Amino acid sequence: MEIIKPRTLSGFMELLPGKQIQFEKMTEILRRTYASYGFAPLDTPVIEDAQILLAKGGGETEKQIYRFTKGDSDLALRFDLTVPLAKYVALHYNELAFPFRRFQISKVYRGERAQRGRFREFYQADIDIIGDGKLDILNEAEIPAIIYKVFRGFGLTRFQIRVNNRKILNGFYARLGLSERSGDIMRTVDKLDKIGADKVKAILLEDCGLTETQAEEILRFIAIRGTNEQVLAALEGYAGSNDLFDQGLAELKAVCANLAAFGVPEENFAVDLTIARGLDYYTGTVYETTLLDHPEIGSVCSGGRYDNLAGYYIEKQLPGVGISIGLTRLFYVLDEQGLLNPQLPSAPADALVLPMTQDPAPAIALAEILRGAGLRVQLYGEQKKFKQKMAYANKLEVPFAVLLGEDEIAEGMCSVKNMVTGEQVKLTPEAAAAHIRSALDAGDCPVILEK
Amino acid sequence: MEIIKPRTLSGFMELLPGKQIQFEKMTEILRRTYASYGFAPLDTPVIEDAQILLAKGGGETEKQIYRFTKGDSDLALRFDLTVPLAKYVALHYNELAFPFRRFQISKVYRGERAQRGRFREFYQADIDIIGDGKLDILNEAEIPAIIYKVFRGFGLTRFQIRVNNRKILNGFYARLGLSERSGDIMRTVDKLDKIGADKVKAILLEDCGLTETQAEEILRFIAIRGTNEQVLAALEGYAGSNDLFDQGLAELKAVCANLAAFGVPEENFAVDLTIARGLDYYTGTVYETTLLDHPEIGSVCSGGRYDNLAGYYIEKQLPGVGISIGLTRLFYVLDEQGLLNPQLPSAPADALVLPMTQDPAPAIALAEILRGAGLRVQLYGEQKKFKQKMAYANKLEVPFAVLLGEDEIAEGMCSVKNMVTGEQVKLTPEAAAAHIRSALDAGDCPVILEK
Repeated sequence: MEIIKPRTLSGFMELLPGKQIQFEKMTEILRRTYASYGFAPLDTPVIEDAQILLAKGGGETEKQIYRFTKGDSDLALRFDLTVPLAKYVALHYNELAFPFRRFQISKVYRGERAQRGRFREFYQADIDIIGDGKLDILNEAEIPAIIYKVFRGFGLTRFQIRVNNRKILNGFYARLGLSERSGDIMRTVDKLDKIGADKVKAILLEDCGLTETQAEEILRFIAIRGTNEQVLAALEGYAGSNDLFDQGLAELKAVCANLAAFGVPEENFAVDLTIARGLDYYTGTVYETTLLDHPEIGSVCSGGRYDNLAGYYIEKQLPGVGISIGLTRLFYVLDEQGLLNPQLPSAPADALVLPMTQDPAPAIALAEILRGAGLRVQLYGEQKKFKQKMAYANKLEVPFAVLLGEDEIAEGMCSVKNMVTGEQVKLTPEAAAAHIRSALDAGDCPVILEK
Repeated sequence: MEIIKPRTLSGFMELLPGKQIQFEKMTEILRRTYASYGFAPLDTPVIEDAQILLAKGGGETEKQIYRFTKGDSDLALRFDLTVPLAKYVALHYNELAFPFRRFQISKVYRGERAQRGRFREFYQADIDIIGDGKLDILNEAEIPAIIYKVFRGFGLTRFQIRVNNRKILNGFYARLGLSERSGDIMRTVDKLDKIGADKVKAILLEDCGLTETQAEEILRFIAIRGTNEQVLAALEGYAGSNDLFDQGLAELKAVCANLAAFGVPEENFAVDLTIARGLDYYTGTVYETTLLDHPEIGSVCSGGRYDNLAGYYIEKQLPGVGISIGLTRLFYVLDEQGLLNPQLPSAPADALVLPMTQDPAPAIALAEILRGAGLRVQLYGEQKKFKQKMAYANKLEVPFAVLLGEDEIAEGMCSVKNMVTGEQVKLTPEAAAAHIRSALDAGDCPVILEK
C-alpha cells in the first residue's frame, strides 16, 4: 500500500491526549459555570448561507472567511458566534423567551495568515443575554461576574476584568464638540499602552486635527487612574454637562456596585477609561480581561453592551450584553506560560485495573464497582508481563493501579497502588473506591470546580 | 437597513433551547460514560488536507464530501471520525501509549441529498481502542458494554446490541468453497429482513451463481435463531472443519461470556448471524444496535473489530475495535418517536430568582448561595410587573421560582414556589437550596446518570 504522509493543517490545534483532557476540563468548567447562571447551550451549524453570514459585510471578515460552493449553494464557515446568534434570535424570535440567555462553546474559522499562537480554527466560548426592546443594567454586572467565576475555576487569580462605558466616552467627546471625530480619537487613544502619551497627543493634533486644549483634555481624562472609587469620584467632576455622559456614569456606578454584590473582589475588576472596543457595535458597558503578569498577551476575554443584535435580519430592537473568550488561544497561552492549573487532570483514568488471572471476570466486576463509585477506570486486558503493565500505567500517568490476582480474589480484596508514592494497600473493592476518591479529593491529583 | 431573511441551511439541525438542553444532557451522558471507562477525549480539526482525508478514496464519500480550496490548499471537511483518528494515531504514533483509547463526539459533514431525518452536518459519538500489533479480545466485549451503559443512561431499555463475528462468516463461506463470492453473498444476505428468504435465495442462485445446496446451506445458517446459548450451541455443530470459523466461534463465545461479566443483561444483546457490516474493513466482532420497537429505523450504533486502522498513513499494524453512534439522527428519531427520556431537563435553570425590591444586592447574594449548593440559578433583573415575571418563569418552564421581597429580606428568608404544584414555602436560603435539590433528586424534574 502506498503511504501518504499524515499531517494536520497549520493553524489547526490538535492536542495530545493529556493536553486534550486538560482542555476538556476547561470547557467543562465553562459549561458548568455558564449553566449555573441559567444560560441555555446553543449549537448553531458551522456552515451557513454565505449571504446571511456576510450580511454586515466588509473588510477583514470577507477576506478571512472560508467560503465555497456545493451544488448551487454559496456557503461559508462561521467566523464568530455572534452573527449566528443574531440569525438564530431573528429566526426563532417568536419561540424564545426574553431575556434570552445563551452560551455557545464552538469552533469558528478564520483563514488568517498562520503564525505562532494564531489559529485558523479556534474555540470561542460566548455568553450573551438578549432583551426584547429593553434590558436591565443588572445584566451588565452579571456577565463579568460569571467571567470572574470561570477564570477562578481555571485556577487563575492574577487577572483583571477592565470595565468602561461607551456613553461616558461618547458624552465626553460630545462635551468637547468632537462627536464626529470620536471614532478616530478612540482608535488613537486605544494605542496609548503601545505608543505612549506623547505619540497619542501628536496624532490627535496632526492627524485628527484637534486643538491643543482638546488634546490636553483627552489625555488628562484617559490618565485618570486609581481605585475604582477614585476613578468614579474623578468622573463625578465631569458630571452635569452632558446627559449621555451622566447616564454612562450612572451605569458604570451600578455595574461596579453590583459586581461587588456578586462577590467579585476589587483586585479582579477595574474601571479603565482607555477601553473602547471598536467603533459602533458596543453602546454601553465594555469589557476587556487581562492577565496581570502577561499584559503583552492583550485581552483574553472581551465584550460589552450593544443595542441592536439582529438589525440585519429582523425589524426588532434587540439589545444585549455579551462576552467572548478565545478559548483555543487562551489555552495555548496558559500552557506556554506554565499557567495551566496544575490540578487539571491529564490522565485518562483515575485507576487502571490490572487483572493477574486468566479469567477477566473478577477484574471486570471490580472495575464496575469502582466506576459505580464515580471513578474513571480503565481495565487493562492485554496479555503482557507485569513490568509492561506497570510501564503502561506510568506512561498514562494514572494516579492508581489496582491489582487483582488469585490471592486478592480469594480474599475478596484488591491491591491499590499509588503510582506517585509507590504505597500499596490491600482493600475491599468498596474501600478501594473510597481510598482513591479521598486521595483525588485531597488534591493529590484532582480538579474541583471552585464553588 | 435592508433586512435579509434569516434561515438555516436545510439538512443542518438547529434546535430550540429546550431541545438543545436535552441534546446537551445526552452528550454529557456520553462524555461521562466514555470517560468512566478510561477513554481520552480527542478533538481533531473539522478541516483536513483533502488528499489525506481521501487517501482511501472512492465512491460515495468523494461525491458527498465538502471540498474546497483556500489559497492553494486543497481542503475538505471530515466525513467521519475514523479517518481523522487514523491520521492522528499515525501522526502521533511515538507519543501515544497503546492500547490507545479515545472517544470523540464531534460534527461530521456529508453533502447528501437532504431528506427528512437525514443530516448534512451531524454528530458522531465514537469510541475506539487501538492496539499496537495486538489487541485482546476482552476489548471486544467492553465496547458494547459501554454502549449498553450509554443507552440505559439515555433512559432506553427496549434496545438490543447485535453481535456477530466476521471470521465465522468468512470461515463458513470458505467451508462451502465460496470465499471469493462471500462479498456478494453477504450483501445479499444483509437484505434478508427487507426482502425475505425466498428472494434472497433467488438472488443467490441467479446472480451469485450458487448451487441449490449452497444456497440452502446459507439460508439454514442465517436462520439460526434462539437465545445466545442456543445460537452458540448451533454454531458448535459447524465447528472443527475450518480454522477461521473455529477462531471466530471462540471469539464470539468469549465476547458473550465477558458481556455477561460486564453486567449486560441477555435481553440487551443477541448473537445475530445476519450481521456483516460492509466488506473488508471489519475482520472480527461486528455490532449493530436496534430499537426493538422501531426496527424500521435500522442500526443506531454500529462498529466492530478491524485489523488495520492506519495502513494508508503508517507502516504499522494497528488493530482496533470501535463503535459509532449517529447522535444527531438518534436524537431526531427518539424525539420524533416520543422516546426521549422524560427525565432529561429542558429548562435552562432549576430556579429563577425574582427580586421584588429596587436594590438587587440581596437577590444577587441569594442566587449565589443557591449556585454554591450546585443549582442552576437565573437571576431575573428586569423591571416588570409580578405577573410578567411569573409568565417568564412559566415560559422557561423552570421548576422553581424564588421570590425575595422586603419581608423575606427582613426575616433572612426567601419564598420558594414550586411552579408545577403551585406550593409556596418560606425558607432560609440554605434550606431553600436543600428543598429544591431534594425535589429535583426525587425525580420531579431531574436527570440522573444511571450508575
